[in-house]
Amino acid sequence: MGARVAVAGASGYAGGELLRLLAGHPEVEVVAASAHSQAGTPLAEVHPHLVTLADLVLTETDPDTLGGADLVFLALPHGQSAELAAAMPAHVKIVDLGADHRLRDAGAWARYYGGPHAGAWTYGLPELPGQREAIAGADRVANTGCYAVSVILALAPLIAVGLADPEDVVVVASSGTSGAGRGLKPNLLGSEVMGDLSPYKVGAHQHVPEIKQATGARTLSMTPVLAPMPRGILATVTARPTSAGVTAADVEAVLAEAYRGEPFVRVLPGNAWPHTAATSGSNAAHLKSTMDTDSGRIMVVSAIDNLGKGAAGQAIQCANLMLGLAETTGLTANGVAP
Amino acid sequence: MGARVAVAGASGYAGGELLRLLAGHPEVEVVAASAHSQAGTPLAEVHPHLVTLADLVLTETDPDTLGGADLVFLALPHGQSAELAAAMPAHVKIVDLGADHRLRDAGAWARYYGGPHAGAWTYGLPELPGQREAIAGADRVANTGCYAVSVILALAPLIAVGLADPEDVVVVASSGTSGAGRGLKPNLLGSEVMGDLSPYKVGAHQHVPEIKQATGARTLSMTPVLAPMPRGILATVTARPTSAGVTAADVEAVLAEAYRGEPFVRVLPGNAWPHTAATSGSNAAHLKSTMDTDSGRIMVVSAIDNLGKGAAGQAIQCANLMLGLAETTGLTANGVAP
Amino acid sequence: MGARVAVAGASGYAGGELLRLLAGHPEVEVVAASAHSQAGTPLAEVHPHLVTLADLVLTETDPDTLGGADLVFLALPHGQSAELAAAMPAHVKIVDLGADHRLRDAGAWARYYGGPHAGAWTYGLPELPGQREAIAGADRVANTGCYAVSVILALAPLIAVGLADPEDVVVVASSGTSGAGRGLKPNLLGSEVMGDLSPYKVGAHQHVPEIKQATGARTLSMTPVLAPMPRGILATVTARPTSAGVTAADVEAVLAEAYRGEPFVRVLPGNAWPHTAATSGSNAAHLKSTMDTDSGRIMVVSAIDNLGKGAAGQAIQCANLMLGLAETTGLTANGVAP
Amino acid sequence: MGARVAVAGASGYAGGELLRLLAGHPEVEVVAASAHSQAGTPLAEVHPHLVTLADLVLTETDPDTLGGADLVFLALPHGQSAELAAAMPAHVKIVDLGADHRLRDAGAWARYYGGPHAGAWTYGLPELPGQREAIAGADRVANTGCYAVSVILALAPLIAVGLADPEDVVVVASSGTSGAGRGLKPNLLGSEVMGDLSPYKVGAHQHVPEIKQATGARTLSMTPVLAPMPRGILATVTARPTSAGVTAADVEAVLAEAYRGEPFVRVLPGNAWPHTAATSGSNAAHLKSTMDTDSGRIMVVSAIDNLGKGAAGQAIQCANLMLGLAETTGLTANGVAP
Repeated sequence: MGARVAVAGASGYAGGELLRLLAGHPEVEVVAASAHSQAGTPLAEVHPHLVTLADLVLTETDPDTLGGADLVFLALPHGQSAELAAAMPAHVKIVDLGADHRLRDAGAWARYYGGPHAGAWTYGLPELPGQREAIAGADRVANTGCYAVSVILALAPLIAVGLADPEDVVVVASSGTSGAGRGLKPNLLGSEVMGDLSPYKVGAHQHVPEIKQATGARTLSMTPVLAPMPRGILATVTARPTSAGVTAADVEAVLAEAYRGEPFVRVLPGNAWPHTAATSGSNAAHLKSTMDTDSGRIMVVSAIDNLGKGAAGQAIQCANLMLGLAETTGLTANGVAP
Repeated sequence: MGARVAVAGASGYAGGELLRLLAGHPEVEVVAASAHSQAGTPLAEVHPHLVTLADLVLTETDPDTLGGADLVFLALPHGQSAELAAAMPAHVKIVDLGADHRLRDAGAWARYYGGPHAGAWTYGLPELPGQREAIAGADRVANTGCYAVSVILALAPLIAVGLADPEDVVVVASSGTSGAGRGLKPNLLGSEVMGDLSPYKVGAHQHVPEIKQATGARTLSMTPVLAPMPRGILATVTARPTSAGVTAADVEAVLAEAYRGEPFVRVLPGNAWPHTAATSGSNAAHLKSTMDTDSGRIMVVSAIDNLGKGAAGQAIQCANLMLGLAETTGLTANGVAP
Repeated sequence: MGARVAVAGASGYAGGELLRLLAGHPEVEVVAASAHSQAGTPLAEVHPHLVTLADLVLTETDPDTLGGADLVFLALPHGQSAELAAAMPAHVKIVDLGADHRLRDAGAWARYYGGPHAGAWTYGLPELPGQREAIAGADRVANTGCYAVSVILALAPLIAVGLADPEDVVVVASSGTSGAGRGLKPNLLGSEVMGDLSPYKVGAHQHVPEIKQATGARTLSMTPVLAPMPRGILATVTARPTSAGVTAADVEAVLAEAYRGEPFVRVLPGNAWPHTAATSGSNAAHLKSTMDTDSGRIMVVSAIDNLGKGAAGQAIQCANLMLGLAETTGLTANGVAP
Repeated sequence: MGARVAVAGASGYAGGELLRLLAGHPEVEVVAASAHSQAGTPLAEVHPHLVTLADLVLTETDPDTLGGADLVFLALPHGQSAELAAAMPAHVKIVDLGADHRLRDAGAWARYYGGPHAGAWTYGLPELPGQREAIAGADRVANTGCYAVSVILALAPLIAVGLADPEDVVVVASSGTSGAGRGLKPNLLGSEVMGDLSPYKVGAHQHVPEIKQATGARTLSMTPVLAPMPRGILATVTARPTSAGVTAADVEAVLAEAYRGEPFVRVLPGNAWPHTAATSGSNAAHLKSTMDTDSGRIMVVSAIDNLGKGAAGQAIQCANLMLGLAETTGLTANGVAP
């Protein structure tokens, strides 16, 4: 009857997307969904779109409730997952959608997150060289940050082959509002976000060290912007080429080669550029590159669904590997548009 | 490997949604997708979100191209499907998403559509009494209109049992912009629709005779409104009760009984009211009723995705029945939210 | 240097719109803006769009702070304005944007609002017959409810002349999210409202008695819907004609006559229908009518900005009259579009 | 009574915003509004939000019709304004909102626009040093590009004082859809743009040479993104500091000094960052800066309304100067929010 899985933090947007995907996954069974502040509430009240799971009752978030699963997804606020993970039985596999186990560098953790550093788990991005196998062999996987994955996919191959200068990367990435969570904050009210673009954490976003760790970039600025849409990340990644001879064709060829055969990463053909709606609701990442006419910089644009390849889709892709299932089970590369 | 299906009118929004759903359908194979004005174009250029069908090349819309399929979906502008259907081989099953074969009354056709009346096919709403069986036995099915299905599901059981007066029904229904199609019209530009609600066809919408035919309503006003969102229909259906003794509980009980066991129609429990986002991307319809305090009218609100239960999802539900497959194959009641 | 005015409840959306309009008003000076929970905060932190008032510091909401003004606008939650108003010096003119002083019928107040009934003030809708003069002579004015004004303008003249049956009125009205206020509620998060239409208070909205009082309607259902846009109300008002002989031209003529020469109410010519974006940011109301083909009901659609003619614009129009200024001072009928 | 002004290209979004602002301008009279393809149409059909100008009839776009004005605004597609301007009487002052007269470098014109180079007029950005006086003395002014002004205001002072390296500037700027015009293009349909971020002209946007000319930047990449909102531009400007000693306070001080006393440019205090909604409908530009933690780059974010400071507002600010009026007449720094 498939693997038994549980979701901690089921009342948030990432938790809801996990449950949506798991409800359609043919090889797993959802045995528990927890949400501390709403324990005892039927899922229908929290996620009315999840009709087939409407009668599932949310539980407390604790090892007793979640420990009966074969694999648990942790979709908790940063800082909470490490404590829960430490208390979970060793035989339970865990995919942590929070940041707690992403960074190897305790100093970077201290600078960007603060609090105790829980140490790093296997990084949950199967498309990185060798990482697919590492995830398949791991019991604990740290899922990628949403902005991070959109940037890493665009940048890592270019630094790896020596086309992009790791010392000079500039990223601007805009996200739909679900990326900011379901907490009640004044700036997240619909009246505020509709018709508005607003930057935040300018000059110091916590995904910077994660991106540097995964790509080899050494200096990188990333400016996040909140965009008036529920889902989606569009990242604009610009990097200085390592030599004047680097051409647009070179860059495109490296990206094409890096993702040849990948089921979820698509380097767009022709003149098409990635846009977020095409990835909405899916686990897809779309990429496209060129060289800037005036500055000669490498330009790569990537689009993902922040709740898909940026969170829940990615997590299930990892879980499939960890459970020995086909990597694409229960996932799709096809977006829901318009 | 499953039934061979084709989609005529694949470049529009309903056509795109059909292809998205068919791409994930385990029992069918898409053998052709046609779009007259874009024949020869790879699907990736028209629907960049359909990654797994990216290399499918659009064909001409003609019987030769489409006639090799076991079942063809017609997602063509009103008036075009009848002509194509008439030229199709008899053994090819057809689901017509257009209006051409919905109305039995030639006079109503003439008043609301004009042009030759093609006659009526089996009406494609499985949740109507007896209709599931009729569809399963039919080779030609007329899919429901998008507004029509949102109203019929809310109203038909109440008239059938005699709670609602068929002489006095007032409907206001708002739709996302994909319901207005992909044609280049000034009022459909993003700059116009965002931040805007605009009524249209006030006093004479063509789904009125379809709703009357399916529900038994005898006089009905329906005002459609274009809403600033890509998908979704919210219909507010008000009807005068046939007697002063009709209670909110009576109405709710009739709806609950009518849709007991239905996989896609959900009468919401407790105090929850339908809202469109909960049905987005799905084949679900959500319903809820009460009695108006001041007027004593029956109030029913329904929510669907106009491209789901309002078009492509419904069409595939019908096709499943016609092909002898489980009715829910390839469909979900779970929406994509937020 | 013009009249001295103050705004109580300046941190909300109606308060912000009042300040925006007052900042551009040539005959008034804003001497105080209060917001209890944010007293001491510069306005720039609460309303960053109000650049010319950025350094105004919010005060406590009390009679001492506000009593030095010639006229005070109360933009407080329902129930709070009556208490404050009772404590204000008699010589200070007041426009109450809350509901506390709208209803003459204590029973209706009890049914829809509850708590003590403060009694009714002069109703602040200058376009009603005789009301302009009443407002000009009043020291205390109860501003219209946002939905109420959109319905009253459409309906009152038709009942007054006997074209519309006061016993059978059905209204569905959709509002932008600013109409639901700036409070932190889960259903008002941007991630929830974008892409969504959601009904609320179905069967019992508190503006029903206000509409009945102002129009003479005797039974009326009104269903409000929250729409994915920051501003605007589109109301669909349907009424049974009093005789079969009523024509679309009759209805249109009554509306045209009722609002001839009105600076802010426009009955649209030709085939144009009201839509909310055309009124956004303005004090305009747009109206259009027809007869429904199938039901023979009178259909009137109205559009306003809920913060304009639905709240702050209306309030300033009343204040102008109360202060002996030209009624249109500081206001515009031109919307901000797209 | 005041200056007689005309608008060529009145049916587009910039033309509409010009008319909206001119309708509220106390010192000008609109004597003609032209729109070749809609000559003879009442303005109400094209811009239903402009109630006070509803009966103005659109004329042909030719020197005879427009030449009777004291000042003409040209809001025409690139390439058309130069021809019309050349045919206008010399005594008629002109503000060209198109690009035709912005670039001094014929080579840059050829690379980014093509066609004959009309030569450069006085550049219409009053906040540049000395430019206010130049505009006041000019009869022909080239209004700024929408993206251009958002970047120039953020960057010019930093290069001028030597804080920012002109060789290494990276800009990503997102715009509301009105910036893409009112033409009927498939990618501008509401169903496409809502919920979507899409980049365009990646690697070669035509505002790059304009920005370089006005700021002294020597190499600059600018990536434009279409955002799901009708109005607004958010520009993220990053530049390498000229020395390691440059601090956030240095940058902020330069911007504060550059715009001290400017009525429309506001360097935000405290921790507030610019966001587009705060400038919507206004002629304001909001700026804020910091140094990036990881890369040490200078980060400046600016927000404007693309139709305000990015087009029509800016044009009227210039026209006020050219006509000897107070620069702020008919304009506001206060946005329309939410």
